[in-house]
Amino acid sequence: MTSMNQPMDELYINTIRMLSVDAVEKANSDHPRAPMGLAPTAYLLWTRFLKFNPRNPSWPDRDRFVLSAGHGSMLLYSMLYLTGYDVPLDQIKQFRQLGSTTPGHPERGDLPGIEVTTGPLGQGFANGVGLAIAEAFLAARYNRPGHAIVDHHTFGIVSDGDLMEGVAMEAASLAGHLQLGKLIYLYDQNSITLAGSANVAFTEDVAGHFSAMGWHTQSIDGMDTGAVRQALILARAVTDKPSLILARTHIGYGSPNKQDTFGAHGSPLGVDEVRATKENLGWPLTPDFYVPDDALKLFRAAGEAGSRRQEDWEARWQSYAAAHPDLAAELDQARSGTLPDGWDSDLPVWTAADKPIATRKASEAVIQAFFPKLPGFIGGSADLNPSTNTVMKGAGDFEPPLKPDGSIQGASGGNWGYDGRNIHFGIREHGMGGAVNGMAAHGGVIPFGATFLVFSDYMRGSVRLSALSHLHSIWVFTHDSIAVGEDGPTHEPVEHVMSLRLIPNLTVFRPADANETTSGWRVALENDGPTALILSRQNLPILDQSGAQGDASQGAYILVDASKHQPEIVLIGTGSEVQLCVAAREMLEAQGCRARVVSMPSWELFDRQEASYRTAVLGPDNTPRLSVEAGTTIGWSRYTGPHGGSFGIDRFGASGPGDKVMAHFGFTPENIAAGAFRLLGRPELAKQIVQRPQPSSS
Amino acid sequence: MTSMNQPMDELYINTIRMLSVDAVEKANSDHPRAPMGLAPTAYLLWTRFLKFNPRNPSWPDRDRFVLSAGHGSMLLYSMLYLTGYDVPLDQIKQFRQLGSTTPGHPERGDLPGIEVTTGPLGQGFANGVGLAIAEAFLAARYNRPGHAIVDHHTFGIVSDGDLMEGVAMEAASLAGHLQLGKLIYLYDQNSITLAGSANVAFTEDVAGHFSAMGWHTQSIDGMDTGAVRQALILARAVTDKPSLILARTHIGYGSPNKQDTFGAHGSPLGVDEVRATKENLGWPLTPDFYVPDDALKLFRAAGEAGSRRQEDWEARWQSYAAAHPDLAAELDQARSGTLPDGWDSDLPVWTAADKPIATRKASEAVIQAFFPKLPGFIGGSADLNPSTNTVMKGAGDFEPPLKPDGSIQGASGGNWGYDGRNIHFGIREHGMGGAVNGMAAHGGVIPFGATFLVFSDYMRGSVRLSALSHLHSIWVFTHDSIAVGEDGPTHEPVEHVMSLRLIPNLTVFRPADANETTSGWRVALENDGPTALILSRQNLPILDQSGAQGDASQGAYILVDASKHQPEIVLIGTGSEVQLCVAAREMLEAQGCRARVVSMPSWELFDRQEASYRTAVLGPDNTPRLSVEAGTTIGWSRYTGPHGGSFGIDRFGASGPGDKVMAHFGFTPENIAAGAFRLLGRPELAKQIVQRPQPSSS
Repeated sequence: MTSMNQPMDELYINTIRMLSVDAVEKANSDHPRAPMGLAPTAYLLWTRFLKFNPRNPSWPDRDRFVLSAGHGSMLLYSMLYLTGYDVPLDQIKQFRQLGSTTPGHPERGDLPGIEVTTGPLGQGFANGVGLAIAEAFLAARYNRPGHAIVDHHTFGIVSDGDLMEGVAMEAASLAGHLQLGKLIYLYDQNSITLAGSANVAFTEDVAGHFSAMGWHTQSIDGMDTGAVRQALILARAVTDKPSLILARTHIGYGSPNKQDTFGAHGSPLGVDEVRATKENLGWPLTPDFYVPDDALKLFRAAGEAGSRRQEDWEARWQSYAAAHPDLAAELDQARSGTLPDGWDSDLPVWTAADKPIATRKASEAVIQAFFPKLPGFIGGSADLNPSTNTVMKGAGDFEPPLKPDGSIQGASGGNWGYDGRNIHFGIREHGMGGAVNGMAAHGGVIPFGATFLVFSDYMRGSVRLSALSHLHSIWVFTHDSIAVGEDGPTHEPVEHVMSLRLIPNLTVFRPADANETTSGWRVALENDGPTALILSRQNLPILDQSGAQGDASQGAYILVDASKHQPEIVLIGTGSEVQLCVAAREMLEAQGCRARVVSMPSWELFDRQEASYRTAVLGPDNTPRLSVEAGTTIGWSRYTGPHGGSFGIDRFGASGPGDKVMAHFGFTPENIAAGAFRLLGRPELAKQIVQRPQPSSS
Repeated sequence: MTSMNQPMDELYINTIRMLSVDAVEKANSDHPRAPMGLAPTAYLLWTRFLKFNPRNPSWPDRDRFVLSAGHGSMLLYSMLYLTGYDVPLDQIKQFRQLGSTTPGHPERGDLPGIEVTTGPLGQGFANGVGLAIAEAFLAARYNRPGHAIVDHHTFGIVSDGDLMEGVAMEAASLAGHLQLGKLIYLYDQNSITLAGSANVAFTEDVAGHFSAMGWHTQSIDGMDTGAVRQALILARAVTDKPSLILARTHIGYGSPNKQDTFGAHGSPLGVDEVRATKENLGWPLTPDFYVPDDALKLFRAAGEAGSRRQEDWEARWQSYAAAHPDLAAELDQARSGTLPDGWDSDLPVWTAADKPIATRKASEAVIQAFFPKLPGFIGGSADLNPSTNTVMKGAGDFEPPLKPDGSIQGASGGNWGYDGRNIHFGIREHGMGGAVNGMAAHGGVIPFGATFLVFSDYMRGSVRLSALSHLHSIWVFTHDSIAVGEDGPTHEPVEHVMSLRLIPNLTVFRPADANETTSGWRVALENDGPTALILSRQNLPILDQSGAQGDASQGAYILVDASKHQPEIVLIGTGSEVQLCVAAREMLEAQGCRARVVSMPSWELFDRQEASYRTAVLGPDNTPRLSVEAGTTIGWSRYTGPHGGSFGIDRFGASGPGDKVMAHFGFTPENIAAGAFRLLGRPELAKQIVQRPQPSSS
């Protein structure tokens, strides 16, 4: 097989190829041939371009690399092993096996050097945009003349599949708008997808498409190391546009019978074809996992060079810290992942005498109180700032330094540039989700993304990955129930709070009033994983906490206990329905029924409490409990127990003024009290309170 | 206020504007000014272009209109009223009120003439692509020379917000690839979004972007009726590309103080500004909801003209039916929404002696058995055909008539053209979801979309709308648990089955073996709403049904009863876990414990059964029940009752061979039997069976 590359280059490239081929073959599972086509690119990236230090994978100024085409995971594992990360060859041999650190798709945390978890297509693309946003923000905020202490690139490899996904298109449009010049993606244009030729579904002019979105594009032969090198140099020189390098590659390169075929995508080569490929490429047939000494030496040298680059950087950092001690201290603090002392000293407290306020508005007040003390807190909404109330006032707009023509309406009233902390994601929920995850993965910032709760559906793929990757992403979901009102059922969440609770590792917090909103933000900021804050559109009264036992940070607590002794019934409410429970309790007590109200903003936090606390809150097992939440009732029997019931809505909502919609579906104190009496087997008292139809219950 | 349009045109246009303004003002809720800017377009569309018959909104050959920018609903309601649909003016006056048929966003079924439910941005755009796909398919299959009995356009109005959403970008790329020439969208380019100027987040070259995706584009002044008219004529003349007309409009046109302002988007004009606007446009200040006779006459005449167009079409239909009686009968049948007699006569039946088979493979066999008898059954996967096993063999590929260059790999082996029934959606789950909903809304076809279950997250917005709109969309989700194996946690659904069950109106069906898969397809096809079929990657044995009481179509049934008397415990399994329950039951019975196995493929179907049947299946309330499903346990206490437990997985999965992953997380008969013994308070017997750690339970 002839090649346009130098023989030594081919040796290095084939080393990468064959490690992947052997690992996939041993696993007898996976797609081996994306790595085969991408090996020249990987070789160049790691030996000539990427700034990295295998000895310190968390060096803050390293370049970030994202393998958005996560199904080519062996390419990444190979590079990490070869360049000297703490990745034993044995783990390469255990590729895709239970208990290994080399799963089918790369997972952040499993191996050093893996920046983000990829596999679900398009997510890595959007993560990279977030990584570049974080870099641009930190550089603008902290660099000073002569001190470019934040100055790194985000490189990525993306596939046909990534470029078809909406999440990537949203992120691409945003990256172009933001002129993220340090973002450089290589598009592995192999024209093959799992189902066949990409041309059965994907015939657009990708370069034209990206140009129109404000990207710099180049089209090259991805098998030619000279061309790849030139393209990367040029991409790096373009500083006001993100770059897409369309690299034509040959999937399964080197395999005599499976190169460029659709069959090459879905399964291993097979023993015979592995042999034929090795013969074809002039590779020793044995041993498996053969790494020539020369190759290992070269790749390890690249790792060593990176180590020296970090040493240089550390020296520059010291000089920066001497010249700008406050900034250096602030950045150190932000990167530490901990919150500075006193960050919470001005958090607002409301009293029961204060006017009712929507929790989204309370959230706005909480944000204003802490954001000046948390310089790394950045984010924004999917074009719903005036509604989600998430703007940091006066903190500037994260926008490219050149002002666009025309007046800027809706800006937050501060600077306009990369040091702005309010990000305008556009109406791109999924792209926002992926970008926020990328920012969280970068470090140095605490990112958030906001939209209406009903549109959490649009970004569920990213919310899930934030949970799977244990990222400190904060999701703010407002307009949290049928009380949304006039916008109608398309905009009224019903199943959403519960569906978020189903996602492992995600903390869901739905505050009942302004003070619980403060608690929710505290939880979100102190959490080391992702949190979803669920906020109301409508005003809610400030709850009287004078009888409270426990507090919101425990996930659930007794807000008002029964008048005496053990309660006959426990009303468990969340969010805007807690106030209804309080009023219903009054009615029950007025009839001589001992009722307790529990406010339960967060299942996950409550489940983490000691059993004794949980029992103290919920009462003994045989206590009848009625859950009250303006959402699906499925799931609530987890807490309501054998004699309990659930008051919710198991159908879609309706368009009308929010308070009327709530009443229409039975969310009134009278109905809740009546439901409680029915649960207690006293239908005559229920009838006395209300004539309405029975609420939905399960 | 001067205008470039003729005075009578302005009268008609202002009639549309003022109806919207008054309705929004009365509702004191909504965005009134998109309709104000779009009124010239709407006037022209309904009086000069749209083929519609208000007397028969379901005329099959009508043009379809989609208001993707659903927040401009009053524009659509105004046009329906003015042109003579059965929409009382009183309902216009009840805009956004509880119980009205004029909700905040247009809902299919609420008023005649509303083709699809819109509001969540981007969905309508994707629906329109599906409507155009259905038209192209039906035209290709049924038209004959001289008989163009399927020949209509899909028009739509889309907003900035639509064009930022990934779901729309996916659908746009697909539409361009498919060369859907009868799809014509007007882009309301008003440069204003809810959060401010669109240029804070959206600065791409939209025309260039769409050109690169294969669309025909024009940029015009959207306030100039002459320009709009010419653009629509030209768009209609381009038959091999979908069209995007970029129409610059003025949001809030005519309002002296709120035109072109961001504040115009989120709230009503207010009494003073309504007055000022009326004065500015020379409109009578009273009465509200004023419709000049001349205007009503003109719009009603347009409706009458449509009525005559349908008469013409009916005559042509008769001539077609005479010439091609078989085709006409087939199309009539397909449009009826019922299934033809004998459609199910060849459905496969498996016996317990047959080899184990994955339910995705069984599904493939079922599809092959019915698709020849259901000519309207069309669909495909998001580039996962070889894995979802949803190809109709020999039924052709739905592709534009011109073959692309190069060989076509992965095609289904039939024709290549608009009469092909296998659609290659590309790796575009959300766009697929929206398009499938559009096809279902069109009628004449029964569409399906397929992907891996974990990626149902990517298209959840569309799945929800299929349920809200009661569309006959069929969702096929394969690779349904951690048994996916090597691809690892990014590809292993855990929370997904339950999260789909939370969506109202959606029937979720997870068959336990090949025969239940046949039942599932029967349910999906006979359902008049949406169904999600949840299928396994891995092989499953054919269950012995000889002891069954009831069947899968009832949602749950006794698969194997206890050996005698009432069971001491009921094991409730779904999908691939039912076989584990059967084996666990053997172990329990061997120890003298009377155990029943219930297979429960569908909660929704089971909930619809008589109470007596449900009790017969689940046993009396005090029967301990153990649910077994390789997914989140939240929700299962609904069925397991006061003494029950749940066997599931409440964390993310792991990468490894599927059977090892399942065993690692405890999904073995031994563990299930041990769990049952523990539930029954007999830990010593549990210990005897297995030494493993206790499974996750709640």
